[in-house]
Formats: sequence, C-alpha cells, structure tokens
Amino acid sequence: DEVELPNLTVTEPNPSHVMDFRRYASAQVVSFNKLQTDIIRKYSDAPIGHNFMGAFTEFDHYDVSQDLDIATWDNYPIGMLDRDASDVEIKRRYLGIGDPDMQAFHHDLYRTCGQIRNGVDGGRWWVMEQQPGPVNWAPYNPAPDPGAVRFWAWEAFAAGAELVSYFRWRQPSFAQEQMHEALLLPNGEFNEAYHACEQISAELSQFETVANGTPGDVALVFDYESQWAWEIQPQGEDFSYFELVKRFYRALRKKGINVDIIPPRPEAIANHKLIVMPGIFALDDSFIDAVEQSGAIVLAGPRTGSKNKDFQIVEDLPPGPLRHLVDLKITRVESRPPFAPIVIDKERALEGWREFVQPGVDVSELMKSKDGHGALFEHGNTIYVAGRPNTELANHVVAHALDRAGIKSHKLHRDIRMRDNGNIRYIFNYGPEPVDCAQLVNGQKILIGQAVLEPKGVLVVALQN
Amino acid sequence: DEVELPNLTVTEPNPSHVMDFRRYASAQVVSFNKLQTDIIRKYSDAPIGHNFMGAFTEFDHYDVSQDLDIATWDNYPIGMLDRDASDVEIKRRYLGIGDPDMQAFHHDLYRTCGQIRNGVDGGRWWVMEQQPGPVNWAPYNPAPDPGAVRFWAWEAFAAGAELVSYFRWRQPSFAQEQMHEALLLPNGEFNEAYHACEQISAELSQFETVANGTPGDVALVFDYESQWAWEIQPQGEDFSYFELVKRFYRALRKKGINVDIIPPRPEAIANHKLIVMPGIFALDDSFIDAVEQSGAIVLAGPRTGSKNKDFQIVEDLPPGPLRHLVDLKITRVESRPPFAPIVIDKERALEGWREFVQPGVDVSELMKSKDGHGALFEHGNTIYVAGRPNTELANHVVAHALDRAGIKSHKLHRDIRMRDNGNIRYIFNYGPEPVDCAQLVNGQKILIGQAVLEPKGVLVVALQN
Amino acid sequence: DEVELPNLTVTEPNPSHVMDFRRYASAQVVSFNKLQTDIIRKYSDAPIGHNFMGAFTEFDHYDVSQDLDIATWDNYPIGMLDRDASDVEIKRRYLGIGDPDMQAFHHDLYRTCGQIRNGVDGGRWWVMEQQPGPVNWAPYNPAPDPGAVRFWAWEAFAAGAELVSYFRWRQPSFAQEQMHEALLLPNGEFNEAYHACEQISAELSQFETVANGTPGDVALVFDYESQWAWEIQPQGEDFSYFELVKRFYRALRKKGINVDIIPPRPEAIANHKLIVMPGIFALDDSFIDAVEQSGAIVLAGPRTGSKNKDFQIVEDLPPGPLRHLVDLKITRVESRPPFAPIVIDKERALEGWREFVQPGVDVSELMKSKDGHGALFEHGNTIYVAGRPNTELANHVVAHALDRAGIKSHKLHRDIRMRDNGNIRYIFNYGPEPVDCAQLVNGQKILIGQAVLEPKGVLVVALQN
Repeated sequence: DEVELPNLTVTEPNPSHVMDFRRYASAQVVSFNKLQTDIIRKYSDAPIGHNFMGAFTEFDHYDVSQDLDIATWDNYPIGMLDRDASDVEIKRRYLGIGDPDMQAFHHDLYRTCGQIRNGVDGGRWWVMEQQPGPVNWAPYNPAPDPGAVRFWAWEAFAAGAELVSYFRWRQPSFAQEQMHEALLLPNGEFNEAYHACEQISAELSQFETVANGTPGDVALVFDYESQWAWEIQPQGEDFSYFELVKRFYRALRKKGINVDIIPPRPEAIANHKLIVMPGIFALDDSFIDAVEQSGAIVLAGPRTGSKNKDFQIVEDLPPGPLRHLVDLKITRVESRPPFAPIVIDKERALEGWREFVQPGVDVSELMKSKDGHGALFEHGNTIYVAGRPNTELANHVVAHALDRAGIKSHKLHRDIRMRDNGNIRYIFNYGPEPVDCAQLVNGQKILIGQAVLEPKGVLVVALQN
Repeated sequence: DEVELPNLTVTEPNPSHVMDFRRYASAQVVSFNKLQTDIIRKYSDAPIGHNFMGAFTEFDHYDVSQDLDIATWDNYPIGMLDRDASDVEIKRRYLGIGDPDMQAFHHDLYRTCGQIRNGVDGGRWWVMEQQPGPVNWAPYNPAPDPGAVRFWAWEAFAAGAELVSYFRWRQPSFAQEQMHEALLLPNGEFNEAYHACEQISAELSQFETVANGTPGDVALVFDYESQWAWEIQPQGEDFSYFELVKRFYRALRKKGINVDIIPPRPEAIANHKLIVMPGIFALDDSFIDAVEQSGAIVLAGPRTGSKNKDFQIVEDLPPGPLRHLVDLKITRVESRPPFAPIVIDKERALEGWREFVQPGVDVSELMKSKDGHGALFEHGNTIYVAGRPNTELANHVVAHALDRAGIKSHKLHRDIRMRDNGNIRYIFNYGPEPVDCAQLVNGQKILIGQAVLEPKGVLVVALQN
Repeated sequence: DEVELPNLTVTEPNPSHVMDFRRYASAQVVSFNKLQTDIIRKYSDAPIGHNFMGAFTEFDHYDVSQDLDIATWDNYPIGMLDRDASDVEIKRRYLGIGDPDMQAFHHDLYRTCGQIRNGVDGGRWWVMEQQPGPVNWAPYNPAPDPGAVRFWAWEAFAAGAELVSYFRWRQPSFAQEQMHEALLLPNGEFNEAYHACEQISAELSQFETVANGTPGDVALVFDYESQWAWEIQPQGEDFSYFELVKRFYRALRKKGINVDIIPPRPEAIANHKLIVMPGIFALDDSFIDAVEQSGAIVLAGPRTGSKNKDFQIVEDLPPGPLRHLVDLKITRVESRPPFAPIVIDKERALEGWREFVQPGVDVSELMKSKDGHGALFEHGNTIYVAGRPNTELANHVVAHALDRAGIKSHKLHRDIRMRDNGNIRYIFNYGPEPVDCAQLVNGQKILIGQAVLEPKGVLVVALQN
C-alpha cells in the first residue's frame, strides 16, 4: 500500500520511488522465506539452509540469512565467467577455470551470511551446487580444464565450506537440462567429476580443514541497496557497483589477503584493521561511528555516501556522513566513455568515473591527474579515491591502505591466489603454466601438492603457529 | 479521418501511407501550438517563443515557427555528441567541447525559424537551454572542457542569438534530474558555469553584437519531410538524411563560410550565390523555378528530387523537377556496406550510396569512379553528386561550388571555426592545442582573445568595413 | 489437440515439446498446400509448382514437395549474402556476386525436391524469382557486378534448371517494393538485367542443356528437423546446423564435386559413393540400414545421431544408431567461444564445438587435438569428426573421404567453381581477376567463353564421353 509500481510513468520514474520499490520487493522475499522457516521450526530442530545464486542481487541476501542456519550458494565458475563481459583478458586466460576472484568473493560473502543468525562461532556455509562440467545455460559452455572440479572444491574448503555438493548426480537424458553435465553420464556411468570427487574425499581425510573460516584483517563492504542504487542511476552506462567492489576485492586478493565481505552495519565490524567501502550509496551515521571507533584504516570512494536513504544528494554535498572521517566535498562528477580515461601517469588512471573534490585544509592530496585535479586523498585514517581506479591504480591504492593498516601482504604471480585458514595455507594456480611457489611454502610442511605448482594445481601447507 | 494508423499491416506499411501519417502527426503539433498562441495573443502583445530540441525531427520546425515570434532551442553539445555514433574520430577529439559543427548548424537553422513569422528584419532567436556541465541523460556524461561553457555562449552570440539561458539555475538534490549540473550546486554555492556567465556578461558589455545574424552567401536546404522520407525508406541501413546534410554543412563551415539553413520553399531564397540541396525527397516546381530565377549556383544530389509528394518514384526517373536545371537521369541506385566504398581516387570516394547516371549531351562529367561510372556532373549552374561523398569528396565538391559561385573562402586549421557577423569576426578553437590565427585576424583590432588562440579559446576581431 | 503452444512456460519450454510443435507447424503447411493442390488436380492436369525461399527452414520442404510437380525457388545471391553474418571474408570478396556456394546448394536441394513426387526421371525444378539488380530488403543493397545476372542464370542451367524467371518484369514506381530493381526501369525502358536475358537466350540456343541434372557421386544430407533441433538447443550461441552443413558442402564444391542434397530417408540414397551427414539430430534405424547396404563411405559428426525422435539423449550415449557403423561413444560435449578453438595443428582446428570420444578397439584415431583428445576417427567405411571443423579441417576431411570413396576431384582456384552435367562442363569465376582454366578445359571443345576466364565469367565445355 505504501509503494506503487514504478512503471507506466510519463518519463523515467523517480529514483527514490524505484529504490523504495526495490526495498519492498526484497522485503517480500525475506518475509516469504521467514514464513516458511517459521513453520519448519515449529516442528523441527534441524538446521535450515537455502541456496543463494552468485551475482544475483535482486534481494538482500544478508536479510534473508537472518532466518537461515546455513547459507549456501551455487557456484558455476565457467558459466559465470562467460556471462561476465567486463574483462576480456580475464575471460580469455581463465576460460576453463573461471575468474580467479569471483568464486572466492562469493565464498567470503556467504560465509558472512552464514554467521548472521547464529554469530561468528555458530556460522555455517556450504556450496550447494558446484559445477561438475559444461552447463547448458551460458552463451558458450566449455568443458572445465583438467583438474578444475577438484580445484574448485579446494577453493571452497579453503574458505571454510562445510560441504560441497554438485548439481547434479546424474545427467538426465530428457528435458531442458539434458545438456547440463553431472557426476554420472546419462547412461549411469561415472563422468569425470565423479572421479574428481573420489580424489577430493581421499585428500580431505588426510587432515582437518577449518569450517567457517578465520576472520580476516580486512573487511570489504558489499551492500545490496547500493547495487540497486547504481542500477537505477548509473549516470554512465558501464557503471556497475558489483564490478567496482570486485576491483577492490581482486586487488586485495592479489596481495594474498583474507577478506571478509560485510554489510554496512555496525555489528558487522570485528577486529578489522582495514575497512574498504567503495560506492556505498547511503551511509548510516551509526555505521560511520562504528567504523571510527574501530580505529581501522578506511578506504572509500567513489560515490561513497553520496545519497541519503531517500535517494537524494546528501545535504551540503557528498560524501555526507563520510565527511566525519575525511574533510572533503565532491562538487561535481563525470562519467566518461572507455576511450577517455583520466590519466594519472603511465599506468594508472581513473576509468569511466571521476569526481571533482574540494579538500579541507587538513587533507593530503596523494595523487593528481594529468589534467590537474586531485585523484587520491588522505585524512587521518581515511583514504578517498576520486573515481573508478583502473587495475594498476586499484593495486596501488590497496597496497597503500594495507601498508597504513600494518597488514603484511604477499607479492603473488598473476595466476596464483592463496588463503590462510587456521594453521593451513592453501595456494592455487589458475594459470596455464607451472609456477614456483617455494617462497609461499617457506620451508613448511606440504600436505598436498608440490612447491612448483602445476596448472590448475592445489598446494596445501601446514603453517607453524 | 483521412489517414489511418500505419501499424498492424501484414508486412511493412506502404511508404506513401507512412509519409502521410507523419505529415498528419507534424500538423497536429503545429495546430496544437497555434491553439495556444492564439489564446495568448488574444490577451497579450508579448512576443511568444518556444524551445525546439536539436536533432529532434518528429515535426516540422519551420511550420511551428509560423506562430512564434522567437525561435529558441536547447543546446547540449556534449550530450548530443555522445549520442551521435556517426563519426568516432569527431567523438574522440571533441569529447569535452562537442562536434564543431553541430551547434552552429542548429544556430543557423533556428535563426531561420525565428524569421518565419516576422521576416528577416523582425527575426529573433535564443538559446533557451544551454548545457552548464555534465548532464544526466547521455550514455556517458563527461564534464565540459575548461572554458567550454563560455565558448558555447560565444558561438551562439556570434550566430546572432539575442539571449543564452541555462538549464538550470540550481542543481536539485532530488528526483530524476539530480545528476544534471546547473549554475549553482545543490547546496546553493556557485558552480563553474556561474563563473563562466559572469565572464561572458563582462565581455558582452565591451561591444555590440549583431542580433539575428547577417544573411549568408550560401543557403543549405534542410527539409523535415526528407528526414521522414529517408527514415521510412533508407534503402541502406546507415543512410541518414540529417547526416548527409551535415556533411555538406561541415565542408562549408570548414571553409569559413556563413550558411543559412533554409526550407525548400521559394520564399526562403534570398540573395544566395550558392544553394546546396542534397537528398531532398520531393521537389516542388515552384521551388526549382525560384532557384533558377535566383541565378545561384546549385549543388544537389544524391537522391534529390527522386520522389513525388506521394512517395512514388518521379515520372520518367529521378531527379524529377531538378532535370529542369541539370539534364540527367538516375536509372539505378545502390546502397553499400561501410567496407565497400566506391573509390574515385586515393582520398575521395562515395560512401554507402551510389547512383548510376545517364547524362544528357550538354552535361559535363567532372569525376569518374574507378569502376568507370560518372560520380560528379555539371550542367549550367548546377552540380550533381551521384552518391554520398566521403569527407574529402565533400570538401572538394564544396570548394568547386564556392569557386563557381565566386564566394571567397578560407583555409582553416582542422580545429578552427569562424563566423563573420556584421563587422565582427568570431574565431573558435575547438582543439586541444593553441593555433596561430594571425592570418584570420589580418592585422585588425582584436576585441577579445589573442591571435595565438588557446584551446577552447574565443577570438573576436573588429572588421573594418 | 495433441500439442499445446510452447509459450507462457515458467522457464524455457521442454525441447521435446518445442520440437513437436515445430513438426505440427510444418505439417500444417504441408496439409494446406495439399488442400489446394488436391482441388487443382480435380480440375486440371497441368503440372503444379510452388516457390520455396532459400535459407527459410520453418517447414519441411521435402514434405511439401510430395504434392508438387515442379519445385521452384527464389534466388537472391546478394541479398542472401548481406544477411549472412557467418563469414566476413566471403562477404567482402563476393559482395557483388554472392557466396560461391550458396545458390548452388539450393539448386542441388530443390532439384531433389523436384524429384520427390515423380521420381528422378520425372523431376522438374525452376528458379522462380531471380535477382535482377539491387533489392530493397537487405541491410545494404549493392548492385550486382557487371555480368552477374547472366552468371547466375548459367549457375542455374548448369544445375539442371528448366527455367529461370525474374522478380520482376518492371520496377514499380509506387509502394513498398519501389526500390526493388527489375528487367524494366519504372519508366518502361530496358534495364541492365533485360539485356542480360537477351544474351542468355541467345547463348542457350547454341546447345542443349540437361534439365534436372545428373545424379552425383556424393550425397549430403540436409534435414529440416535437425535445423529445428539445433535452433531449439544450440548449446553454444553460434551453433548453426545450416552453417555446419554448408561447411561440408563448400569443401566438396571446392573440389569440383557434384553433390546431391538429400533428406535422411532410405529412398533418397541412390548410387552414391559417399554420404556426408553432419549434425543429424535423430537417426532412423532404417536410414542407417540403407546407408550401410549402399556400401558408401560415410562422413558424419558432430552431433549426428545424438538424440532420439523425442528429443532425448539416445540410450547408452550418442551417436545412437550411428554406432552400428562406427563403434564409439560421445561422453561429453563442449561449446566454445570464437576466440578459443580446439587446435589440431597450425591450420586445422575444431571451432565452437568439440566432442569427447570413447572409441572402440577397432576404431582408428586419425587426428588428435593439441590438448590430447581424438578429433577424427575411422571405422570401416565410416569417418567421424568430433567437432565443428574449421575451413582447413573441413577441406582435409572431405579430401580424405573422397579418396576413400574413390571419387576423382579437382584442385580449383579459390574463386573457381565447376559442375559437370551430362556431357557438358560449366566453369564459373566468382573472383575479381581472370583465372586460367585451361587444365579444366583439358583440350576439349569450348562452347561459351575462354580458357582464361574473365571475372564473373562463364565457361562452357563439351566433354567427350
């Protein structure tokens, strides 16, 4: 009754109206889920889980998780990569294994979701559907690289998954999903993924993995309302909130850092030394207060705090409540076509989005664009990026923020990703060539794999604490 | 009652039917405007103006202008450029300033519109909405280059604008247009464009500009019915009438020539020495008679005069009534994909459209394509181009026509545009580097600017008459 | 009553359902045609013909042909080429003449259609509409190259056409098709195509062409149900059955081979030495039996026999009934984006589609991909290609199959195509330069043209039998 449909308007609908409608639509999903879980809980003490879909952001997954004991998700690394048009080089290099940071991002997101109802210690998360072979729904459906199915399972267990399950047991010979591979062939014989599962099971019995995952030093804020906000008002046709957050996530992960994906809510902040929060549409004062009290280094911008909850430009200009942490005003913004980045130096640039900043007297300008405007600012514990950083700039900014936060990082080969969980280190080679990882092994005991890590190989090391 | 809706037909509707419907739709706009202006005039002597939109051609702007005392238009140079896909090189080079010929084209068009009701001497025209910064509606919305807002105002005053107004005074913090910049920031502080206006006001007080504009030596015909005709029947998917006319306009303006944009109506012809009329769908005998009696040099084709008013191929083949001026027949036409131009020589070619011509005995063939067909013809005062000229060919043909008409032209740097109005010369640098314009200043008194004209700079010179 | 509409389903409809609907839709066309021909035959003994459209595959042309005495089709070489996006190089090189293999493919298809009712000896086929100049319906409508109209007519007569007719006699000056050229100009004067017809008529009177065409050594199966099947379930977004069949046709024709296009029905097999059958959706046992009994060499795959008639994966895995001829199982398939072919060697590759094969012990693996999987298999008389071959691989595979079948082939210049019919050899130069064809003339009597064949030239030679 409070929100009319935002369609059939004379011109585009008011963004405030659309945002309210999207909140309403999300709330409907939450309440429908609660309706069902309430019924189940009346008759059963069994834990309740449900599967989310990666990169589906129509409703707020944190809110739905309030009523779930186990957060689970559907992980299709190759299908997701083929659908993603944002980076052609990534698509070419990782065609048979998937984007090296996309599944890890979701593992980190759903680990948080799995902790919402029962707290960090009571948290549980699974992969409900893992890709076992070519699927039937992407534009192209290539076969996973040899070893990929095992590799993906280890990425999940490394991140604290309690369970990895496959869609599906046996490939059907009929109907819409007959071209979706499974553990068994349509005739009931074992398919490749079945044998991969046998290997994983044998390997898992060799040592104890840490379920749920160790909290990281870094929190990266991912906010469903912000996703809706910038879909409603991209201002430049290629502006994607999800892609913006992923840029920062990728830069962090390329430094070998464990990341917690969190909502912009005070209670989500733990002992994080660095909080990264690009593009948050509307900031709550309470969240900013909690961030400040945590003492963490903050990395924010662009667009962070630029609107209020009613989708209006904040009073006295962006970044609104963030000004409590960094004394600057965004007077103007521009979106730019791909052929016209704002160049900073030979390698670094702002791509597609740039903000014009009026810094206060205590703010340091760390970087300037070639056309003479500040691009990177710092004030106290807070760093602000005045635009969408390209890969090199994101790497630089993240390195600076880690340094400020006193977090030790690694220099990884482009194809290598790693994660420490409990006293175990997991190392992954997403690339097409063997990579020498002796430096990361650092003389410690290898549980699985070899220091010269084969393509699509997994290396597990016992860390001495 | 006379024209049914041209939809729900078994296959595509008859082009004659669609044309009649578009005439009807345009007439509805005209009569609705008249309905309102009649009411206003009953109670007020105040002059009536209304704003047109550049490149919006759904109705006949000349016809609506019959009931207006002041023709005004909305000038968004960057927004228009970003929407225009026809020339990537133009888009890249002029991203922050706009196509060097697009706003001038519309100034020249609406100056004519402003003269339709009250005659040349009583004519008035304005820019009703001028872009003050990034807008919110183009695919990408970059910030104007430094100096661009002042620059655009001078382009308008140079062309005889009586007034330049901005959309809008203050950027709203709410609703659909919150990302559209204004003279004031959302918090009421002055934005860049406000300061540009202060500068323009100070500069305008230094001398008297000529309102309305001096009639040019060259008339370029732009016809709304032709725009509709070739939308209805492009015959090649990239054929655009507007873009064809703009090619000739650009070639003229690159020669430093003042151009009047006129409708194909006898009364629109003044003391023009050259009349350029590409692509006019259907020619009136009365217009051709007036053209002939004017003694002007005529530059026509392709497609000029190829249909009658009922959207049928003219009797005894195109160019119909134009044959009165140039004795040739178009037997066949072809549209061609971008990769297959009809080459004339190393630089010149017909692009996308070519006509096969049977010239009469008195017609000279001035140019031949490499595959052996006439490409450029002349007969008496009339020049006919048998296709869509590429940039180099358009430049050549226009130079030849100006020469035939005895009109003095200039050799301008690629980024420079100029306009003489009354005894004042205005010179504009659309480019990224300073350009020495001493030759155009020619030792005369500089009112504003410097002979070495800075990027996005304006140079105003008092001509001794 | 038996098949509901396959729309308004919650997600995509079941492919079995869509296939049944498409069979029903095709059957409706067949029965409507029969309804009319039955009426005509009640009152008339005149032969009945109808025109098919090339590359229109909505209904089964073989089935409609059961009720026709003369199969005819509409041949627009340039319009068809402009619509076809599959090969840019073909499009550029043959812009004014059309794909060298597209019209021949249809001639061979409709020759078969024309024999369905009255048998091979009673078969009749025509070109009902031949393109006479630029048309009005393709994205671009270039003029045919000089000589093209005559050239096309000879391609048809060479393939056994009884008659070539033009659309249309006179170009209308009005309505939707006013830009479609004809034999006469809108004013009634002769257009180019009229003069081409005069020349063809004179040439035809010099010797006797063979109507209907001589059966070829090679049968290439083209199946309308398979076209529907892979439209319903492409599995990779660029998978086209028609294009797959055309690849094999082109490779055959580049070897100077006459090809019969046939349906996958036992009665369609004559004295063919080689039967090529890529991509047939569902194989009938009866067809496989007939193929086996014919003793012909068989070239099959990919996807051949992978489903049963109900659009389910065949029992005990693909290639289903084909396993009777070649002992292998397809366990997995993958579709791949254009940038990621499965490389075999420097020139040869599988493009977009690859199958993983378990060969039986008696099967020879003739080729392997660089990533270690079998790409080409042979067992007895049957050759199986485990993917979509690129041009070079298709050429290789076809050469090997022709060799196995003992069919003599030619090495033709890239622009040359040829056809022997009765005791006459026809040679065509689709290219932009003259080509010396003395080797194909081989000292025999030239009826039309010259051994050094001019661009778009036709050479007719009397073979001594």
